[in-house]
Formats: sequence, C-alpha cells, structure tokens
Amino acid sequence: MPIDNSNMLKVIEDFPDQCRTALELTKGMSVSGKIDKIVVVGMGGSAVGGDLLKIYMRDSKIPVFVVRDYKVPNFVDENTLVFAVSYSGNTEETISAFEDAVKKKAKIVAVTSGGQLGVMAKKVIKIPSGLQPRAALGYLFFPVLGVLNNSGIVDVKGREIEELFDILSKTGDFKAVGERIAKKIGLRTPLIYASELLGAVAYRWKTQFNENSKVAAFHHVFSEMNHNEIAGYQNVNKSDFIAIFIRDSQDNGRVKKRMDITKEIISSRVDVEEIFTRGDGLLSKMFSAIYYGDFASYYLALANRIDPTPVTVIENLKKKLK
Amino acid sequence: MPIDNSNMLKVIEDFPDQCRTALELTKGMSVSGKIDKIVVVGMGGSAVGGDLLKIYMRDSKIPVFVVRDYKVPNFVDENTLVFAVSYSGNTEETISAFEDAVKKKAKIVAVTSGGQLGVMAKKVIKIPSGLQPRAALGYLFFPVLGVLNNSGIVDVKGREIEELFDILSKTGDFKAVGERIAKKIGLRTPLIYASELLGAVAYRWKTQFNENSKVAAFHHVFSEMNHNEIAGYQNVNKSDFIAIFIRDSQDNGRVKKRMDITKEIISSRVDVEEIFTRGDGLLSKMFSAIYYGDFASYYLALANRIDPTPVTVIENLKKKLK
Repeated sequence: MPIDNSNMLKVIEDFPDQCRTALELTKGMSVSGKIDKIVVVGMGGSAVGGDLLKIYMRDSKIPVFVVRDYKVPNFVDENTLVFAVSYSGNTEETISAFEDAVKKKAKIVAVTSGGQLGVMAKKVIKIPSGLQPRAALGYLFFPVLGVLNNSGIVDVKGREIEELFDILSKTGDFKAVGERIAKKIGLRTPLIYASELLGAVAYRWKTQFNENSKVAAFHHVFSEMNHNEIAGYQNVNKSDFIAIFIRDSQDNGRVKKRMDITKEIISSRVDVEEIFTRGDGLLSKMFSAIYYGDFASYYLALANRIDPTPVTVIENLKKKLK
Repeated sequence: MPIDNSNMLKVIEDFPDQCRTALELTKGMSVSGKIDKIVVVGMGGSAVGGDLLKIYMRDSKIPVFVVRDYKVPNFVDENTLVFAVSYSGNTEETISAFEDAVKKKAKIVAVTSGGQLGVMAKKVIKIPSGLQPRAALGYLFFPVLGVLNNSGIVDVKGREIEELFDILSKTGDFKAVGERIAKKIGLRTPLIYASELLGAVAYRWKTQFNENSKVAAFHHVFSEMNHNEIAGYQNVNKSDFIAIFIRDSQDNGRVKKRMDITKEIISSRVDVEEIFTRGDGLLSKMFSAIYYGDFASYYLALANRIDPTPVTVIENLKKKLK
C-alpha cells in the first residue's frame, strides 16, 4: 500500500494550475473608497497568504498587518480593508476576528470554500473545497492579490504572472531538488533561514515540515539570527539539526555577506544546504522557494514512512476543543 | 575559578534598579506634532524592547511596527515617530534604518549609550554603557515608554509602576524558579510558548537561552502553533526537547483551553513546564515572565559549565563582517 494515500503528490504537482484558477476567481471584483490599512486575518496557511501579501506590498505606502488572533487591532476602522481568510470557513479565531472587524466597521472581503464565514460575510470569494488548507495556498493568496489589483491598490504586471507560471511549470526541477533536500535532512531537525523580507517563505517551509512530514522544524531570519540564534550553535550537533538557507540573488548585499559568513561559522556544527529563489519578480521568487519546500516536506514524509495528508493530532485537538 | 567571570548574576539581580533608573532618564523629554504611526528599529534586545511596546500599546489606535532590517517601510513619513534603538550605537542595521528614516522625514528619537547613532541623531536618550545589550533591556525599553508617556501617547499609571517594582523586588523567587527550570531542561532543547499577545516574551526566553546558555532554543505562539507546529510533535522525543508554556491568568479563555489540551496531547512526547506571569498590569506580566527566563538562561549556562557573558561567536561574526 502506498504511503501517500490521499495523493498529496498530485495536489502539489497541480499547484501551478491552482494558482492560475485562483487568479481567475476575482475577475471584476474590487473594493472602493478610502483604504489606508490592510489587514489579513487567518491562521496557518491562510495567514501565510497574508505574509506573502506583506512581502509583495513591501514598497507600498499602505501598511499590511497579518493577524493570527481572535481580535483585530483597535486601529481597524472604516478605512481598513480586512481580508478574512479561512479555507474551511470554520476556523474559530478567524470567525471571531471577522466579527470584531464587522463591529469596527471595516471593509471586509472573505476568502473561503464555505463554512460559517461563507454565510456570515457579505462579500465572499468562494474557492474550491476538498483540499488540505495548507495545500490550497494558491487559492488563499491569489484572490486577495486579484481584488487588490482590480482595486488599483497593487499593480500586478502581466510579465510577472507569465514569469511565475513559466517557472512553476518546471515541476520536475522542483521535485528533484525537494527529493534531494529530504534525503539530506534524514532524521535531523531542519532549521530554515531566509532574509527578513522572505521570512514568511522560511516559515512556510517550517510549517510544511510540521504538517506534511510530522517532524519538528524551526525558522528564523537574517540578520536578526546573527544577534542571538547563532550563539546557540555552540552546542548543536550535526546529527541533530540541519540548516537550510533560502537565498535570493537580490538579497541586500550585507545580508548576503552575513549568510556567507554564518555558513562558514556554523558549518563545523551543522550541514548547511542552500536553496535559491528563481526569477526576477517577487511572485516568482516567493512561490519558487515555497514550491521547493512543498516537495521537500512531501518527500521527507515518504522517507519517514508517514502519510503526508492526514494531520491526526490537529484533528484530535479540534475535537477536544469543542 | 567561577564560570560567571563577568558577574552576569549581579547584572540580572540589579535589573529592577536598572528599570527604575531607566524610567528617570526621560524626565521632561517629549515629542510633539501629529503622530499616527510608531516604528521601533533595532536588533536583538533592542527590537524586543519594541515588541514589548507593541504589547503595551495593544489597545492603541496608533499602530506600532518593529523593524529588524536595514530600511524602514515606505509608509514612514513626517507623522511617524521612529525610535532608533541600539545599545552600542554601532549596530549597522539600525544605523542604516535610522538614515532611511531621516530621508523619509520621520520624527526620530535615538536610544543608545553612544556610538555613531549617538553622534548622528539630534534627539538622543543617553543610556549607561558597559553592559551586554541583552542585559540592558530596562534601558532599551523604559526610555521609549517614558517619552511616549510624557507626550500623552500612552498613559502609564503610578500603580502599574509600583506593582512592577513590588513584584520584581522579590528577586529570590525569580532566581529559585529560574534555577529549577534550568535543572529541568538539562541537555534538552527548550521550546517556549506564550499567547500571541505575549509572544515577544517567549522570544526573549529563546534569545536568552541562545546567548546566555549558548544552546539552541525556539519559540512559537498560541493558537498559531495549534495549526502546524503541534503536528511535528509526532516525531519528538523527551530526551531531545522540553516545552515551556508562559501562561497568564488573563489569557483569552479559548487560548487557555488550547494550552491545557495541547499540554495533554504533547505530554506523551515531551515534558511540559508552566510559568505564570505575575501581577495585574501588563508591565508586571511582561517583565515578571522575562525575569524568570533571564535567571533560567543564567543557571542553564552554569549547569553546562559555560560563562553566560561572552558571545564569542557573535563577536567573531562582527569582525568578519568588517
């Protein structure tokens, strides 16, 4: 019997198509009126979609906040655009924060496959159901981007999108690298690092190792890790941990140098693997790096004889919470 | 020969006095004019001061951003109050971000013991030098709070301050708990958890274990960890990791329940220790929890026969970066 009982491999392979479909979902949908803050509320993969938006809007005059909590901040008001993102539509934190945003008179768009949120929200982008939320990242991110693009808040260029799909379509490359990284990790705990800008990508890797491979995994960013975490390597062993650096040709020059020197310093304590983002546009950079990690976490599950799809612990927890 | 060659113990024991002195440093210093955003730039302990401010201002209409990077966001403008915090005054990321904030015409207050930042900034709160930056958290946080209080942006009550000092003065309690926790940790990697609100406190514990004890340590928050990290416990062993929950009597009811159930679930995989914040005010809660961690990291260093003060790896890295 195969370990990948629910065919997670196919879901990951289909990710480029998912992104394409997701982009189509918001045709003609926009928001109007003054918007001076954007808040994305969600948990897990839904919140990562918000983190990616924050990266994409790094140069914007409009601040983006990602809220993984039961409430939205007090500065949320009628000029705040809130995206309430929950794949199932039944995430309790997101529903609670959504209700709080309603009270605070925010403009709200929900992104969900249904559930309570699908019923409660007036403006809903309905996404297809039937996936594990973490495997639906395309559906959780691109509708948000689409609405903002239609509303003139971001300006997504056609060539960015073309580049993204051109790169993601080379699925075989991503699989091969993912499989190689998984083998390299073996039974060690992966520690994932990226620049401050791409920290959410490192976090996505971490969570995919947690949920798909069911192993411990942690992340941090440059250059903050140079101010504390690096000192902990003094008592780290090659047999316990492995470091993975997610690098970008456009990382700040000092950050590049920090990564090089850090690699040199910690190499006596751990093996260091490097992954490079692909493409020139931010969408390509983010999603290419994520795609490598999705496959790596998939193959690590298989290597450990673990079915990547079910997250029994999380399901049990939800039952006990009722 | 004692291991604590630079007498870190005394520095930690003196922390309440440091906080008291720090509060006095800003007497009469304030900022004026419209302020609709607050940004704290800094790295390591200086950034943690910003995180604590964000906790303290959780209910404010003015958003607080903590920037651990070479640049400030593009929405920084003349209505933004920027605190540039660097203990040495020579942190390269902070100087770079400070220069960027000057270009963007922000109102700027520097908090530093001197260095380049002390020379470059027009408005400087000068703090005493001679400490390890991580041991100067009182000096890095309270001057920021003081300026905001003098400017009418926050309203720090006398009774909050009294409660804080009343609690911190029970140094013996904090030492005893810190020593107990350190013994319990032994050679295992500590994983520190708190609510989303108090996440910065968990991060402070992590960084203190990194820098004082020179061991790996990681942190995450509730309820986000219930959506991913908890699944990784399926392959975690009691001999490798230990979980520490930082709890607060005023944690959201659902978060409390999540912590209880999570403890029950992961207890088959790791030992779980719980620490409770003290006091009613946020200052007491934050600093009491931090104070436990400072002692825990100190005693863990001693247990591992490691001098808590020097961070040779970080010093080497800085030399190589030049």
